[in-house]
Amino acid sequence: MQRGFEPAEFQNRLARAQSLMAAAGLDALMLTTETDIRYFTGFLTRFWESPTRPWFLVVPQSGRPIAVIPSIGAALMRKTWITDIRTWSAPDLSDDGVTLLADTIRECVGAGARIGVPDGHGTHLRMPLQDYQRVLDLLPQATFDGDHRIIETLRRVKSPAELAKIERACAIAGRAFDRVGEIAGAGVPLDQVFRDFQSLCLDQGADWVPYLAGGTGPLGYDDVISPAAPEPLQQGHVLMLDTGLVWDGYFCDFDRNFAVGPVSDEVHGAYTKLLEATQAGQEAAVIGATASDIYHAMDRVLTGGRGGGDAGRLGHGLGMQLTEWPSFIASDPTEIVAGMVITLEPGITMSDGSVLVHEDDFVITEQGARQLTPRAPRQMMEI
Amino acid sequence: MQRGFEPAEFQNRLARAQSLMAAAGLDALMLTTETDIRYFTGFLTRFWESPTRPWFLVVPQSGRPIAVIPSIGAALMRKTWITDIRTWSAPDLSDDGVTLLADTIRECVGAGARIGVPDGHGTHLRMPLQDYQRVLDLLPQATFDGDHRIIETLRRVKSPAELAKIERACAIAGRAFDRVGEIAGAGVPLDQVFRDFQSLCLDQGADWVPYLAGGTGPLGYDDVISPAAPEPLQQGHVLMLDTGLVWDGYFCDFDRNFAVGPVSDEVHGAYTKLLEATQAGQEAAVIGATASDIYHAMDRVLTGGRGGGDAGRLGHGLGMQLTEWPSFIASDPTEIVAGMVITLEPGITMSDGSVLVHEDDFVITEQGARQLTPRAPRQMMEI
Repeated sequence: MQRGFEPAEFQNRLARAQSLMAAAGLDALMLTTETDIRYFTGFLTRFWESPTRPWFLVVPQSGRPIAVIPSIGAALMRKTWITDIRTWSAPDLSDDGVTLLADTIRECVGAGARIGVPDGHGTHLRMPLQDYQRVLDLLPQATFDGDHRIIETLRRVKSPAELAKIERACAIAGRAFDRVGEIAGAGVPLDQVFRDFQSLCLDQGADWVPYLAGGTGPLGYDDVISPAAPEPLQQGHVLMLDTGLVWDGYFCDFDRNFAVGPVSDEVHGAYTKLLEATQAGQEAAVIGATASDIYHAMDRVLTGGRGGGDAGRLGHGLGMQLTEWPSFIASDPTEIVAGMVITLEPGITMSDGSVLVHEDDFVITEQGARQLTPRAPRQMMEI
Repeated sequence: MQRGFEPAEFQNRLARAQSLMAAAGLDALMLTTETDIRYFTGFLTRFWESPTRPWFLVVPQSGRPIAVIPSIGAALMRKTWITDIRTWSAPDLSDDGVTLLADTIRECVGAGARIGVPDGHGTHLRMPLQDYQRVLDLLPQATFDGDHRIIETLRRVKSPAELAKIERACAIAGRAFDRVGEIAGAGVPLDQVFRDFQSLCLDQGADWVPYLAGGTGPLGYDDVISPAAPEPLQQGHVLMLDTGLVWDGYFCDFDRNFAVGPVSDEVHGAYTKLLEATQAGQEAAVIGATASDIYHAMDRVLTGGRGGGDAGRLGHGLGMQLTEWPSFIASDPTEIVAGMVITLEPGITMSDGSVLVHEDDFVITEQGARQLTPRAPRQMMEI
């Protein structure tokens, strides 16, 4: 499979964005995060791990995006389809791209333009607040507005080329999960399992493994976000591994539960219920339904409709990030449309207060929600 | 080595913060990022990879920090020394912790308090801009100010316990670099080398490998931030791998260059000069010097004092993040003090326009800068 995208992919994204910008009355978008900039440029690097330097992309209502970036990124940006690349030597403690950004906006869309900056759920501004204020001060006639959820609207729906990358990530993780018996079992410390599972993911073709969580316990685990302790796995306990690995900038996000030797009937019963809830969610995930409908379909199986649970939701969107819009909660009205990629992630609170969680990934199609992750065993796999 | 920190570590951090807050006239800090929250709590999870939910920590000028967090994090936060933990079921599209945060601030330090929010170089606000505005609106009598670089001032100096974790990360990467000959050589695709090197890091004890960059070419590489292409390594070329791996939440950040078979005299000469520049930087990194002094000491070796280069700096601070304050640039006046952990990262532009970069890590002590990374070979290692 080829890395990157054809220029047409970016042209389509840009055209859709510009159409929404016109409808919202925005002259440009000002973008600052890894995903938002990559979405329009294809600029892919792990260098965002360094928080030092800000990066900017100006997406005008007509014409091509303009990159305003530290010079350290120029060589890589020149390999993308972006041709207007303006750089400064960063870090610059007195003016870290601020004047260059303001000048670019002024030249590109005018001093009195209306600029959209993503400000809604799941977003943040990746630049110092102080510098953002300086940009506003340098453009006193401009209006800074939110992005009217344009980025969310675009990124919620995946193109076939994006979907292919997510499917590949899912397949890689699926093969790694198949091999968990090689690295885990009673007596193996959980932190060793975490290290070795990441190596399995890499061995199966992951570019990298940004996310791994998991847990273990007699019935379930304390939560689904903890790092691994050095305690050895115990016979009769459950082991859960939940990974977000990346292939060419796209995530999978799913987990598998394993029985370390025979586990209790309560675990088997809960596991079956989690699979039933996942299936109910899959059946509800049809075009025209809402995120809320999917939540309720799953929650009816899990709690009889009472809701609750610390996780706060029963799944979410997936793509360039480990978690994206929408959220499967009672109050998310997002309409389900073809091309959305989602995870269904039901959880059950066990009798000892621990939790058991299952997760699978799906794409919404005209024929219903198609599962992207390998089918989980009907009985919890014993290792 | 024990994971986590003794409570005294956090009490010390808090006491230093509160003393600086008093001097700056701040009644509380409002923190939103992974590192800032972990610095005061010890809350360590890879779940920050999910951008969906905001997390907050209120650090008052007297008393203990208060966590205002999604319920999914409550179980893990309860394992830290933080006792006042306020949660909401996130995501909540209508009020994602905003009211709870504002109520907490009001109760804790009063409606008319002066609140410090990190806003300077290398910082960002990790919450939706829209929600930040709502917090301001809910606290109309409060004053929101920057943090007066309090977080930077604190985090720039590492405690002995922090240093021990960084040293361990450096040692792990050092052992992985020693084994590069097992995985790389002429004909091996670079992306395969990247995958296998991450596995080596894990095998040697890394918790995870958030950062890996590298490059290859006859004299150097296009840049130091690119992901790996599938092209095979060529005989006579240089291979560079630069990793930021993590042990218990602390990074190393250094690279090694390898000769894939015999390389040219130009490469050997540049490599020697990089080592000389590193040594010059180390000798300049004494208590009382400035970040700028270190830059000039290295730049004199590299360019005779002319400066330049796309990287923008010749090294930086290191710790909970891959790159931290200060920056080794001509204009950074930060004073070098004992306990700082830094990387020295000289680069040379080669005759074909590519770059060759070397990097090592050091801690500032009364006896000078002590190297934390294994000593690099005096001649580029051949594989």
